[in-house]
Amino acid sequence: MTEFELIGRFFSRRAASAAVGNGDDCAVIAPSAGQAFAVTTDTLVEGRHFLPTIDPWKLGRRVVHVNLSDLAAMGAKPRYALLSLTLPRIDESWVTRFADGLWHALDEFDVELVGGNTTRGPLAIAMTAFGDVPPEGALLRSGANVGNEVWVSGALGDAGWALYCMIGDIKAEATADQIARYECPTARVALGLALRGIATSCIDISDGLLSEAQHLASASNVCIDIQLPAIPTGLATQLAAPELAARAQHCLLATGDAYELLFTAPETAHRDVDALLRSTGLTGACIGSVIEADTSPTVRVFDAQSRQINVATQGWDHFAHD
Amino acid sequence: MTEFELIGRFFSRRAASAAVGNGDDCAVIAPSAGQAFAVTTDTLVEGRHFLPTIDPWKLGRRVVHVNLSDLAAMGAKPRYALLSLTLPRIDESWVTRFADGLWHALDEFDVELVGGNTTRGPLAIAMTAFGDVPPEGALLRSGANVGNEVWVSGALGDAGWALYCMIGDIKAEATADQIARYECPTARVALGLALRGIATSCIDISDGLLSEAQHLASASNVCIDIQLPAIPTGLATQLAAPELAARAQHCLLATGDAYELLFTAPETAHRDVDALLRSTGLTGACIGSVIEADTSPTVRVFDAQSRQINVATQGWDHFAHD
Repeated sequence: MTEFELIGRFFSRRAASAAVGNGDDCAVIAPSAGQAFAVTTDTLVEGRHFLPTIDPWKLGRRVVHVNLSDLAAMGAKPRYALLSLTLPRIDESWVTRFADGLWHALDEFDVELVGGNTTRGPLAIAMTAFGDVPPEGALLRSGANVGNEVWVSGALGDAGWALYCMIGDIKAEATADQIARYECPTARVALGLALRGIATSCIDISDGLLSEAQHLASASNVCIDIQLPAIPTGLATQLAAPELAARAQHCLLATGDAYELLFTAPETAHRDVDALLRSTGLTGACIGSVIEADTSPTVRVFDAQSRQINVATQGWDHFAHD
Repeated sequence: MTEFELIGRFFSRRAASAAVGNGDDCAVIAPSAGQAFAVTTDTLVEGRHFLPTIDPWKLGRRVVHVNLSDLAAMGAKPRYALLSLTLPRIDESWVTRFADGLWHALDEFDVELVGGNTTRGPLAIAMTAFGDVPPEGALLRSGANVGNEVWVSGALGDAGWALYCMIGDIKAEATADQIARYECPTARVALGLALRGIATSCIDISDGLLSEAQHLASASNVCIDIQLPAIPTGLATQLAAPELAARAQHCLLATGDAYELLFTAPETAHRDVDALLRSTGLTGACIGSVIEADTSPTVRVFDAQSRQINVATQGWDHFAHD
């Protein structure tokens, strides 16, 4: 199968709304009337962003959700995507499953795949996603105000815990739910859209709660205080077990792959945000507050006894770890 | 150096016109008034799209030109880019030179880098480029009409020849000019813009003349006849040398990396196109004509004696070769 046959067979569908879709040098697309495009690109590399053993269906799905998670964090409505697929070889059954997972996720959000390319090389998948957003109404990282509450849209730590268990770094069994949290993240698109006009700042948790909170704090020039016991997680048992507590806490605060939204909103919107989370079926919670930055923007974490936790682990950085 | 320091130091500049540039979950951008976006993405993988020995400055430049070449082929005006950089490690001097070459090329076309990401893995660079184009005025592959002339914007074969010489596949020395043609392609942006309203179809030659011509023929449902002696090339000496002629002809017809535009235009526009090529300093030429497709759209090549050349090599396919 040639490159062009591969694209034609698995990755080409007639674009419904694009002026020009697949099959030319470029796609031609435009935001909806009165809107701008929120655009993001993410590359998933084998061995770094997914295990070589991943089901290709889940990988195809994952590529979409990981990119759409960035759109969700801006309050954007997903519209289009470009795919750049680097494959070591063409394994037809692999590509079939990958494409199935990809289209399943694209269809869920009515996203049109309007182009891209395939090439040979070490397995990696780059996607660029486009979403409609009001030019002045995007959810930014920089809008958190002193007095705002800090919210997260769902459980943290489970995905990281599952990964550590799967690679044998934690000697325990992850539950099927935890593994699903790692392998099948869900972009919080509906929530992101609903948070327009309510949230003052927003980011998605791809790299770990602490580092994402630090991004919000830095961009908004504020400090953020987080109450550890308030963070929703499936790791309650592990946090209570002396021999596992440290690892569980690390997962909760510093591992990525959760793809939940972390956002700030005025105290006066507390009920609205809470209702919004319930109505979108999410287990999110208010986990902290925005306070004034005295010297520099920082993030602090407090335990149930209001003691500050000394946090050494500052989230995931692709070049800091091996 | 962390991922965020890397981005901050080498790849972040204040975006002049983007509503939101670097440093948030997404960039927020919009086409100019009355325009749509032409969008394209291309990944360059080490060992496939460039040699491991390439000067990183030239690689940075190349990434931009390769992507902008697709915009040129649509008649789009380059505006924005996203960069997704996968590096095996952070080598500061390498990244410095890479970023210098990248910015040099971006600045040449007033393109704003509005986002992207870095990750660790086998060296690969994915770029997504955005250009303004009138929603109904893009140069497509599908507009070639019977009777149109077929044009190319500059010399073909030299880049492929240089590559084959560099990897020892052809036992000859490439000239410095030929090596430059391979290492430093130039996106024909000004020409692409000028061809709006003149060219009836257009494509850029990234994969080889024959396969690109076949794309035009298939999309337009026509046949294309090409006159071999009319193709501009720096390989005249090699084509005349019995022991090199076959390889030289293969380079001329079937190797990629030229990044010239291949386009069709009405005969009545012959003088205009010719003048346009001269005014943009290009050595392009009329190399053939569009004829009716009897059964299926094909490309034929004729020699100086009007004999049809049996062409076995059909351009570059990333999965057909090794």
